[in-house]
Amino acid sequence: MPTVAYQGVPGANSEAATFGYFGPDATPLPCESFAVLFAAVLDGAASYGVVPIENSLAGSVIDNYDLLAQRDVTIVGELFLLIRYQLLAPPGVRLDDVRRVYSHPQALAQSHDFIAAHPALTPVADFDTAGAAREVAARGRADEAAIAPPQAGVRYGLVSLAEDIQSHAENYTRMVIIGREPYAPTAGAETVWKTSVLAGVRHETGSLATLLDVLRDARVNLTKIESRPVVGEPWAYRFFLDWEGLMSQEHLAAARAVTTLWKQLGTYPRGQIIGAP
Amino acid sequence: MPTVAYQGVPGANSEAATFGYFGPDATPLPCESFAVLFAAVLDGAASYGVVPIENSLAGSVIDNYDLLAQRDVTIVGELFLLIRYQLLAPPGVRLDDVRRVYSHPQALAQSHDFIAAHPALTPVADFDTAGAAREVAARGRADEAAIAPPQAGVRYGLVSLAEDIQSHAENYTRMVIIGREPYAPTAGAETVWKTSVLAGVRHETGSLATLLDVLRDARVNLTKIESRPVVGEPWAYRFFLDWEGLMSQEHLAAARAVTTLWKQLGTYPRGQIIGAP
Repeated sequence: MPTVAYQGVPGANSEAATFGYFGPDATPLPCESFAVLFAAVLDGAASYGVVPIENSLAGSVIDNYDLLAQRDVTIVGELFLLIRYQLLAPPGVRLDDVRRVYSHPQALAQSHDFIAAHPALTPVADFDTAGAAREVAARGRADEAAIAPPQAGVRYGLVSLAEDIQSHAENYTRMVIIGREPYAPTAGAETVWKTSVLAGVRHETGSLATLLDVLRDARVNLTKIESRPVVGEPWAYRFFLDWEGLMSQEHLAAARAVTTLWKQLGTYPRGQIIGAP
Repeated sequence: MPTVAYQGVPGANSEAATFGYFGPDATPLPCESFAVLFAAVLDGAASYGVVPIENSLAGSVIDNYDLLAQRDVTIVGELFLLIRYQLLAPPGVRLDDVRRVYSHPQALAQSHDFIAAHPALTPVADFDTAGAAREVAARGRADEAAIAPPQAGVRYGLVSLAEDIQSHAENYTRMVIIGREPYAPTAGAETVWKTSVLAGVRHETGSLATLLDVLRDARVNLTKIESRPVVGEPWAYRFFLDWEGLMSQEHLAAARAVTTLWKQLGTYPRGQIIGAP
């Protein structure tokens, strides 16, 4: 079973995504940063990496898009992880006794309604959700809890005092699977293929429209577009594009001809939702 | 001088942006959340609000784009704030004595090189940069510091032990100024006008290309485009668009004709950089 690198500590959402995508026999390799994760894939310490790139509430993870653009890896798959949070405390702790609740500021913000409904709770910022669960478990105090995904509770022996406390039910994180080699298609004929590209166009009126005209002519379906300023080059822009469907070599050549940069980040089967009830 | 709502505590980047845009006689109104900020503008408690919507490293602030789309406010201006961080400690504290450094996880991550170069420092997560400075000042310990913008040090009587400790020099946050009434142009003829729009198109091959063809025909200059999935409507997409230049009524009508949603968020003079040395 493959070794799969992810960022975070055991119990993190990315670890759940690893098992969800590769199955229970995968060997997850926790990494302290995304730079370390990409290095683990490139030097062979891991066969694949799981990289969050977009959250339905918080938006794109720009740093990871930049790593995808800079490092010599390729996207071989994707998944959509449903984000669910629990209030996790050591066994025997009652909700009424909890005073301090630890988590990443984004998870605390996304659990705002639950915290507001329990005025005795004081939110305390931490670096990540699973790390907060680990620390709450290590201290074992009767007045502390963590907001973290369910698998962090299982991992660290905490019990759930409240389930699905995220304010928005539709909270998904899109993650891509990276590897060293392009995807070798063993998928069936019904597979919907997606392609991700980093494209650069001249800062001229209509230059992006000219590129999208090529995609329209190729009859592929644009599913994401995001502009990024180019650091150090004011008024130059790059675009991250995803589309569904396969483009012919002729259309790809036409796209290259109207762009100043054209880096294909990968072609891979459209992903599934993981973590739904 | 106008009352201007911002999110955060005194000393925050958004407060510096308020003074930078409206001048030193503005009356800043700190708000605990962006929802409260928008409400303050809508109910008249503030004349304007300052809203960060995009950071050059961290990407778009999706929640604020959604508030712009949902609330009956209009964008009347913009600015680009240069993000600069200092290591701030109570007077008399020496860098060699500091052990714990408090800040928002994003600011800690963006100061990674400085922290790595000083192994005695342990980063501790907090909710915001200026709030961390306020707490470090209140405790007055000899072994604590905060990573926060320079104005937080001025506000809370802390001294800077290190300046410009952010890893990336090109760290800008784009903020928009919101109000209840559209901008009344008193600007000179040389003003470059920007327009922000939320547009929806059918999930059909080429529907975005068709919209961008209209912008190309109007000879305006697209400066940002970002797709957002529509919650609860899989495969439907919305786009946040910015362009420079003014479109004729005919071209605006043509854009409306090829979209399923067309909400103009504001037309305003292109912004300046604030905070550069």
